Parts: sequence; C-alpha cells; structure tokens
Amino acid sequence: MASNLHIFDPITDEEINWTSKLLKDLNGDAKLHFIQIDRLDPPKKQAIEYLNIERYGGGELPYIPRRTYAYYYKNDKMPLYKALVNVSDKRIIANQETPEGTIGPLLPDDMLAVEDAVMTHPIVKAEIEKLQLEKVFYNHSKLGKLGYKVVCEPWMYGTDSPDDKIPMIQAYMYLKLDHPDANHYSIPLKFSPVFEYLTHKFVRIDYLPSGADEKFVKDTLPYKPLPTVEYHPDVMEDVGVRENLKPLIISQPEGASFDVQGSKITWQGWEFRVATNVREGFALYDVFFKGRSLFYRVALNEMTVPYGDGRPPFHRKQAFDLGDCGFGNTANSLALGCHCLGVVKYLDTRRADRDGKPVLIPSTICMHEQDYGLLFLHQNYRTGSNVVTRRREFVIQTIATVANYEYIVNLIFDQAGAITVQVRATGILSTMPNDENNVTDFGTIVGPGVTAAYHQHLLSFRFDTRIDGDNNTVVYDDYVPMEDDTPINTYNVGYRQVRNYVEKSGSVDQSPFTNRTYKVINENSINPVTLKPVGYKFEMPARQMIIASEKSYNVKRAHYATKQLWVTKYRDDELYAAGEFTNQSQHDTGLSKWANGEDSVRNTDTVVWATLALTHPPVTEQFPVMTSDFLQFLVTPASFFTKNPALDIPLATNKFNKSVYYEDAQKAAGCPSEAPSSGSCCKSNI
Amino acid sequence: MASNLHIFDPITDEEINWTSKLLKDLNGDAKLHFIQIDRLDPPKKQAIEYLNIERYGGGELPYIPRRTYAYYYKNDKMPLYKALVNVSDKRIIANQETPEGTIGPLLPDDMLAVEDAVMTHPIVKAEIEKLQLEKVFYNHSKLGKLGYKVVCEPWMYGTDSPDDKIPMIQAYMYLKLDHPDANHYSIPLKFSPVFEYLTHKFVRIDYLPSGADEKFVKDTLPYKPLPTVEYHPDVMEDVGVRENLKPLIISQPEGASFDVQGSKITWQGWEFRVATNVREGFALYDVFFKGRSLFYRVALNEMTVPYGDGRPPFHRKQAFDLGDCGFGNTANSLALGCHCLGVVKYLDTRRADRDGKPVLIPSTICMHEQDYGLLFLHQNYRTGSNVVTRRREFVIQTIATVANYEYIVNLIFDQAGAITVQVRATGILSTMPNDENNVTDFGTIVGPGVTAAYHQHLLSFRFDTRIDGDNNTVVYDDYVPMEDDTPINTYNVGYRQVRNYVEKSGSVDQSPFTNRTYKVINENSINPVTLKPVGYKFEMPARQMIIASEKSYNVKRAHYATKQLWVTKYRDDELYAAGEFTNQSQHDTGLSKWANGEDSVRNTDTVVWATLALTHPPVTEQFPVMTSDFLQFLVTPASFFTKNPALDIPLATNKFNKSVYYEDAQKAAGCPSEAPSSGSCCKSNI
Repeated sequence: MASNLHIFDPITDEEINWTSKLLKDLNGDAKLHFIQIDRLDPPKKQAIEYLNIERYGGGELPYIPRRTYAYYYKNDKMPLYKALVNVSDKRIIANQETPEGTIGPLLPDDMLAVEDAVMTHPIVKAEIEKLQLEKVFYNHSKLGKLGYKVVCEPWMYGTDSPDDKIPMIQAYMYLKLDHPDANHYSIPLKFSPVFEYLTHKFVRIDYLPSGADEKFVKDTLPYKPLPTVEYHPDVMEDVGVRENLKPLIISQPEGASFDVQGSKITWQGWEFRVATNVREGFALYDVFFKGRSLFYRVALNEMTVPYGDGRPPFHRKQAFDLGDCGFGNTANSLALGCHCLGVVKYLDTRRADRDGKPVLIPSTICMHEQDYGLLFLHQNYRTGSNVVTRRREFVIQTIATVANYEYIVNLIFDQAGAITVQVRATGILSTMPNDENNVTDFGTIVGPGVTAAYHQHLLSFRFDTRIDGDNNTVVYDDYVPMEDDTPINTYNVGYRQVRNYVEKSGSVDQSPFTNRTYKVINENSINPVTLKPVGYKFEMPARQMIIASEKSYNVKRAHYATKQLWVTKYRDDELYAAGEFTNQSQHDTGLSKWANGEDSVRNTDTVVWATLALTHPPVTEQFPVMTSDFLQFLVTPASFFTKNPALDIPLATNKFNKSVYYEDAQKAAGCPSEAPSSGSCCKSNI
Repeated sequence: MASNLHIFDPITDEEINWTSKLLKDLNGDAKLHFIQIDRLDPPKKQAIEYLNIERYGGGELPYIPRRTYAYYYKNDKMPLYKALVNVSDKRIIANQETPEGTIGPLLPDDMLAVEDAVMTHPIVKAEIEKLQLEKVFYNHSKLGKLGYKVVCEPWMYGTDSPDDKIPMIQAYMYLKLDHPDANHYSIPLKFSPVFEYLTHKFVRIDYLPSGADEKFVKDTLPYKPLPTVEYHPDVMEDVGVRENLKPLIISQPEGASFDVQGSKITWQGWEFRVATNVREGFALYDVFFKGRSLFYRVALNEMTVPYGDGRPPFHRKQAFDLGDCGFGNTANSLALGCHCLGVVKYLDTRRADRDGKPVLIPSTICMHEQDYGLLFLHQNYRTGSNVVTRRREFVIQTIATVANYEYIVNLIFDQAGAITVQVRATGILSTMPNDENNVTDFGTIVGPGVTAAYHQHLLSFRFDTRIDGDNNTVVYDDYVPMEDDTPINTYNVGYRQVRNYVEKSGSVDQSPFTNRTYKVINENSINPVTLKPVGYKFEMPARQMIIASEKSYNVKRAHYATKQLWVTKYRDDELYAAGEFTNQSQHDTGLSKWANGEDSVRNTDTVVWATLALTHPPVTEQFPVMTSDFLQFLVTPASFFTKNPALDIPLATNKFNKSVYYEDAQKAAGCPSEAPSSGSCCKSNI
C-alpha cells in the first residue's frame, strides 16, 4: 500500500479507513468517536536522506512507511486517546491515553450535533419561548412578512479554571430574520447555554452583560425588534448594486506557467511540494529556488484570537483556530472565477468523520498566477534606454471559515526568490448584545443593539529552515549611528550594522527603531561577493503582541503570542506553537517548553517561528461583513545569491502583454472616451 | 485664456510660454536661466468656494485666475529669483530675489550640460588619461572586444558647511564597457570632480576612500579590469533567458470601469482630479468617495535619501529628490504593456526648459484597473451559502528615475473607500569603489571592486484633509490593558482604547507596542451607529526614522524625517516638508517652522504629513538592478460609514470572470497536465 505515494503526499481515503479500522479492531466493543485522523510526517532524518537521494541520486530511495495519527474517545468518555499507525504496513505503532485533562480538538460534525442538542434541549427551548418570537414580524420590502428564528453558534469553551476537565461548549445564541441568508450576527441574544461536548448534557446558562460593566440581567424578555444589518443581496433592502464595474478577464492562452505533478509544484525556479492537512490547511515541503534549498517545511501552525472584553463570560473567548478546530477541517471549497482567477489548479483535503470514515472537502487550495505590477526596471537617463520587467506571482490560497470569521491564507511567490506570507481577515465580526447608547472603550457599536469587542489575531508561522544546507543560524541585525565626531564620521551622518547571534533557543525582542531585521544565515556557506554568510531575511513589521496580562489564561495558553520571533532546535513532532492540544488547555505545551534557553541553536538544525499579530478594534466598515484586513510579512533573500536572481526574466513587451489604450478600448466598447459618464452606452452588461 | 481650464488642471504650454515671456520682457537684456516653471494652486479659500458651487450649485463659478511660479537666475549668477504670474490675465504678480544663499533646484537640461562640461574639462581629462583606458579591453562573448568608457554622474552637492553659497555639482565618475547599455555603476572610480553648476567652473577634485576608513589615495592609477556586473540582456554574458513564463493577458472587452474627463477621474464611487506637476509628479485634488469629501489635496511632497557612509565626501550624499530634482522632471514615459497592463489611460507632464520653453514628457502617469484577490467573503457553515467579492483596484502610477534609482509611486484605490499608498524602490544602487576584501559594517560589497553604502529613503506624503467637511482633528488611539483584578476584568484579559487629541501643530511619536493608530476625525460629524466622530485612519508600520545625528546637516535639512506623523494648520504655500528650496539648504524651512507647537490644530483646517521611511542596507540581490522593495501604508475609513460601503458590489461569478481549470487550460494549450515539465510542448512562444 501507498508505494506510489510520496512521503509528503496528503493522507488518502484508504489510509483513513485503515487507521480507523485498525483502531476499531484493537478496541473491540468500545464505540470509538474519532476527533482527528491525519498523516504524520516521517522522522526528518529519514526524510532528508530520502530527499537527498531523490534530488541528487546516490542509491535507491529508502523505504519510509507512511504514518498516521488518530485522536479518539471511547464511548464518548474521557480520556482522549492518541494512536500512531504505520499504514504502509497496516500496524499500530502506539496507542495510549493522553495525559489527564487533555481535551481533543473539535470536529465539524460534532459542532453541528451539539448545535442541534442545544436547540432542542427543554431548558433552552423554555428560554427561547420567553422571547415570544411568534409575536414579532418584520415587513421586508423584497421578501414580505418575515418571522424571526433562533440560531445557536457553539464556541470552544475557553479556559478560566483548572477544574473544567471535560470538553464543553459555550453556545452563543442569536436571532435572525427567517431567511437562510439573513445575518444572525446582527441580533445577539443575552443568554448563552453551556453544554458538555461529548454527552450533550446541559451544564448551565450564562447570561451576558450588555452594558458598560460586567453586570447582567437574568431575565430573558420578549424580543423587541430592531433593524438588522444584512450582507446578502437577497436580504439587503437599502443597498443597490454598484454599476459600471466592467469585466477584467485574465486569460492564459498558452496555459499556466506552473507545472503540477501530484503534490510537486514547479514555477519560475521554485520547486516544492504542497500537502493539505486538516490542522494547518496545508504545508509546503522541500522548498528550493534556483536549485538551492531554502526550507524543509513551512506552514501556518496556530492562530489564537483572544478577545479584550473582560466581562464574563466573554473573557473565555479565546479561539485557537488551528489547534481547536483546524484550518483544513474548516476550509472552504473554492470556486472557479470566484476565489481565484486565471488558470487555476485545485487541491482537495480529506478528513475523517467521527466514525473514522473519509470525508472529501473538495478544492480547498487554489493555485494560480497573477500579475502584480513591476518587478524591476531601470532607465538610463542619458540614452532613454530601459529595462522593464513585470512581476508575475504564483499564489497558493486557502480559506478557512471559523464560525463568523474567514481567514484567507496566501503564500505568494515572486520570480526573485521571495515569499510573501499574506493573511486576509474577512467574514463577520463576533458580536455581543449592547444596550442602547452604551458606548465603551473596549468595543465598537456596529448596529442597533449590537457591539463588536476589540480582539487580537496572533498567527504563528513555522519555518523549518534549510537555507543552503542543513545547519542554519538565526541572527538579528540592528542599524545604529556611528559614534559622533570620529575620523570616519566627522559630519555625524554615519550608521552601521550590528549583528547579534541567537545562540540558545528562545525569542528575539522587537526593535523597529533600530530597523531590527531577522535573518537566517548559513555560516558554512559564504557569499563569494559579500564575503559574509548567505542568508534569507524575515521582514516583519513591528506589532503589538498579546495584550492580556501574564497572569491570564490567555497568555498561559498562548505563550507564543508574547513574542514576534522564536527560534528552536529541530525535533520531530514539535510542530505547533501552543502545543499539540489547545482546546480548553490550561497552559501551552509548545514554545514555552521548547524555546527555553537550553538548546544551542547556532549552526544547527534550526526552526523559526514567526508570530503575525493584529490588534483589531472593529470599525463600522467591518460590519456586517468586513473588507479584508491585510496582514503580511516578507521572506526574501539577503545576499543569498551573488546578484539579482531575476535578471533572466524576459523584458516586458506589449506583444506579450497585449494591453490597450483607454481611448481605443472605450471606442471599441462603444463609449465615447470623453463623454459624460452618465451616458448609458458605457454600462456593464452584468 | 485658460477659461476652459479647471482650477486644478496642470500647466499648459501656453501658460509656460506666457510666464517666461512676461519675465523676459520684465528683465530686458538679462539672459534668464529658468530652473522651474509650474502652476500654483489657487488660494484654498477661493478654491473651496469654487468646488462647493461646482458640486452643490448655488451660483456661478467664481473667476479664479490661473497662476504660475517661476524660478530663474539672471546671467547665470546668483541670486535666484522667484516670480508669480497671473497667466489668465497675463500679468506678473510678484518678482523678487530669494533670500541670500537660496539655491534653486536642478534642471535635467543643466545636468546633461554639466556632465558634458566635466567630461571635457582639461583637468578631468588629464585625470582620465591616467587610467590608460586605451590599454585595456574586454573580450565579450557576445559583443567581441570592448573598450572602456568614462561616465560622469553629477549629483546634488549636498551640504557640509555654511560657506557654500553658490550652486555646485559633485560629479561621481564611473567606467563602463563601451556599449550603450553597459552598467557603469559596476565600476566606480576614485576621483570626483566638483564644479560650479551655473558657470561650469572647475572647483576641485575630491578623491574617494575605498577602504575601511576615511583615508584616500590621490593617485589615479591605470585601470586594472575587474569583471563587471551587467543587467541589460544585450550585455549580460552569464545569464540566460528564463523559460516557461507564459502570457497572462488582461483584457477588458467592455472597456474600462473608470471614466476620465480631462483631469477628473471617477471610478467605483471615487471622484477626484489628477494633475501632473514637475516637483511632485502629480497631486490628487478634491477627493470624494460615495459623495462624501475626504481630501482637498494629496501628494508625495518630498523624499530625502541620506547615505550612512561617513567617509568624506560621501557624507554629502543626501538627495532631496523632489525638492532638488522633481519627480515630474525625472518622470519616465510609460509604455503600454510594459509599465501598466489592461486598459490604460496616460497623462503627460509639461516642464519648462532653461529658456522657458515648454517640454512635453509624454505618458508620465498611467492609470488602470487590476484584480487583487478577494475583497470580502463569508460562508455560512450551516448552509454552505456564501458571498464572495473580488477586489478590483484602480491604480495611478508614476515612475521617477533619479540618476541610479527608480521610484514607482502607486496610489491604489479599492472599492471600499481605502487608499493604499505604495512606493516601490527599484533601479540601481548608488555605488562606491571598494578595495579588495574590504568588508565593512556600513556597506555591502555587490561586485568586484564595488560596494553599496547603507542609506535611507524618507518620503513625505502630505494629506490636506477634508474628512466629511472642512474642520478636522487628528487623534491617536492606543490599546492598553485594563487594570488587573477589577470587576470588569476579573480574568485579566481586557484591554481598551485610549484616545489622545493633537491639540497643537507638531508631531506624534510612534508606539507600535500599543498599536498606536493615527486617525483624522471630524468632531462635527457623529457616526449614528458608533455615536463617535467619523474618521479615517492612517495605518503606518513603525519604522526607524533618520539615523544621522541631530548635529548633522542631514537632520537640520530634513527635520521632517525625524518623525512619522506631523500635523499642521493649513496655510497656502506650505506644501513641502523640508521647505520650498532644498538644494544645498543649510536647514529646513518646512515642518520645523510650521509644526512648532503654536497653532491650534483641533477641529480646524488641518494637514497631515506622513513620513514613509526605509532603512536600506543593500543586499547582493539588489545589484546590478534591484527587485522592487515595497514601502506602503493604508488610508482607510474608520467608522466613517455606517457599515461596509462595498456591500453593493456584485458577487463574483465565473460568468463574469471567465477563469479556467488548470487541466482544461493545459489540454487546450497542448500540454498534458500531468506530464513531466521538461516536455517541450508547454514552452512559451515568447
């Protein structure tokens, strides 16, 4: 089995089936409730041997069995079990209880089931009845008379006590107009049931504060309708359709410039593998540019979203969207001409359902090329002679919907060896009920009766570096004034670079005002031009990190979010910044353990963890659905090559690019180019 | 005259001719040497009256005569004169000597003339002869036997003394292979003649240090050839042509979505005027989105580029690329299908030559639309129903070549009311001669015998704000933890916004670790949803500002470069951050005078000056021509609208976007989609 699979290819249906079958067989009569099944990377030492032979020859490829892991509960009871399976040889490698109190991630199927359990529970139904929804209606100008409907949005429970040792769910409750595409985030209700996740047992109802302080009212009162803020064209009443947006077609008559062979992608000097997985969405492996190695593995590995609203129970709102849910589990199926334009290649994700059966999530990754302006140019002002090159980009995109929010993850490759890591936050703000005229300094009113609390997004990207070879060093360079009034600096304008080496596993402080720049260098590979080690730099804008107090569970659970850059020595299975199990965790089991100052990380197998942080105080423009907020950083060669590696790109010509003068295009489209814009001839046909 | 011109339309040939004619007539027999002639904005009070009637009616448009200014020397002698002309009525408003020591900007014509003067001067020729170039040749694999040629690159002289009271030029000298497109920046020579700018008189030769310290050698020795690093395809020997980049055609079969009527642009709710000028490249005027005013005027107004190499004479390398040269003067003529793709509208710049005659620089601005991924989306995970919108952008682009460097200025408008201000630095590093194996901490060796000093780029963007009306206030918001262990923050996770008002003209300190966010608000316009003033925010990444000592001329001349954000009260003619005259200036006459803490700037006519800074330690990948370094910030609504202003955008469909599956595209192009990439059928036809 699996003999034709690459070591990094994503899990197959057969592998999922074998994993669950072997574990079911092992466990006899117990009913297994699978939470996650996925592929496990091979031990790196073996993988590097494999990759070296694959690339450079020197013998037969070693046999590396494919491995999977599984998290499951027996008979819907704690403890959580974790198993490792050799699916190539169809045998269980390990199967054991996780440490006491360990709670597994959430599964989409379970969330829908618990939603159903909440909605049908007599206590919740009794609470809903108090709203007297049968008495309220809304006369919609397009849809006629509409009633209201209750929506349950189960959340990860978060952590505020060492006593919560079983998986729980905090259900935030909303109303919405009775239309499938109405926006329930516009009407948050003031009661929030808590249920057990596995057994669906009712725990209690939390009542939500809606004023300036932590106080709340326990009485659920009849609902008094307020206008809703809608985003779907079928439901919006006061928003027309913007005119005059004309088609902009991206066509590639000779096909794509990239090549896909299974999980292997090649494009413009880049070579790597892309493999989807349920937790991270996808990972890159074995990244090379122009024949030189850069990274062994690259992935977004965690994101925490702590809310800054201190009023209980909102203090528990701290999602770990990868560890608690999984960006593959929650990935959107992307559609041609919607999420990506041009010539588009799609990849799928496979997850396991609670019974251990495979579920296909089609088209979770789209890959395409785009033009993004100019790459480089120069004009000799004496002769007018110039060189102009366009910047073609290759984009790998995935989109996760984690309840209200959407995260668009783009890895953008250029033709000169740089990767832009770009995350676009979109979707809908998580909202809370708000009393009339209640203005606070920790939330923004976004509609009648509804506020959106300030919060943060802190994403961790893990770069298992292999810059020009297996042993790397992380340095940070500061730029500081030269000493005044010295012979080399008589006029006091000089500045210089000060290099610092990260010797031990740990973090690097931010220092934007010395232009601190993080670099991964290879001290064994000296650039023949600069006479210094080759490197790649991480250009990260300075950001506020997690704001919560060090005393808080938010920080204890997401210690990684306190720093922008971490460095660890590579170890197998150290993949996730906040640890393997984040759901209702009491403390992180990731970087706070691994980046502890003990390991030497100089000139060795080094891993860089980059935290991309956004403090997000909502604005009204972000409701009822928000225009993407961009978060990004750049990973780019820093004297890695001897000169610009993109000098070989053909110069731009209009023979190739086929652009058109505005005047000609307007004429061809029947629009007088300097006629008043109110003329109807220029309207789009859409 | 000019009766059919808008008050913001750029200068016309006729206006240039009238300006120089009136001044020549005034000055009788004196020979006038014009340095700059351009249009002057009307007094703002008059202009606002005009704009209000133009937009809202209420009477006849007031008559506002068009005005120009001119800088000129008489008989190539100091002082510099400045004149103001009413070109509508053909009369001189003012004509006077500038204060003693004021030196005018450089003119492209003059730079070419001084280049010629340097090259033909006997002392320089004697120095060149010492190189014995007739004895050295290079056997080029494609071009055959090539000799070497000397190139002179005149620089603004900079400032290091109060005694330099006449315009001077520092000529940096280079060698290059004798081919028009060879790269002279690869062979910097070690002598640098200084000449008078107006009279072309020889002043002296500076000899350049090329080692670890400020020491230099006065002997110019015979040139010993070293390999050059070339960028032009005709001259490169060791670089092939990258294959497999296939066409990506952007077509707009129904024409552009934007409308151009003279200088007036409308696109997707945006309305503004674009006017080219010689100093700034271009300025936006009267910017509205969705019928509400945002800005009276927006422009890049200055950039200084101080070098961090303290060794004389390099310490004098501090360009003011707008004040000393002008981004319109140095603008590239942009070519269809090269600098912009799709349907492209071009605008021209007109400058005056030294005789006061108009010179057309065609196509200095290109405007086009582009797709840049997703604008917003949301998927209801319960139903799978989603809304997806593409992000269409409108881009105004200009490119200035200031000797070695190119600056690409993009103003990017989105459909939701945001402007991205993006500068791409490209072109060629300014280089210095370097001794073999001389590694320093203030420069990067980029080729044999050549180093590129660390330097900075500090750009000032001026926003004359008119956010929802004439009176605005600048605030900065910090995000700070709530007090621990208080009733509202029992779990120590809360944080809140602290707002600070800029009361007096001055600057705001950076504070990335409190997520400090600059906003321009209108205290007279309360958002009915948030119940707080409407605003726009400036999202600027924290950056190191000018590094040079406060004692240095670099800082005295570019005081604006010490801070990221400045606020002043509007006054006519306060347009340029470092003052009107920067060439060889002793100190700034701009923000240090205007932002002095005296004017009240709260709820009044306010101007925001944003400094975009880049500390630039070169890397080898940036030679011989550098892939664009991106610098950008975002100006975006912050609870200005009551909700997302882009809800009216049609949802994305493939009927509209016409994208194609990779497999289908490869098949159509005759490429088996999963065949090895080495197959020849997939090669591009370029």
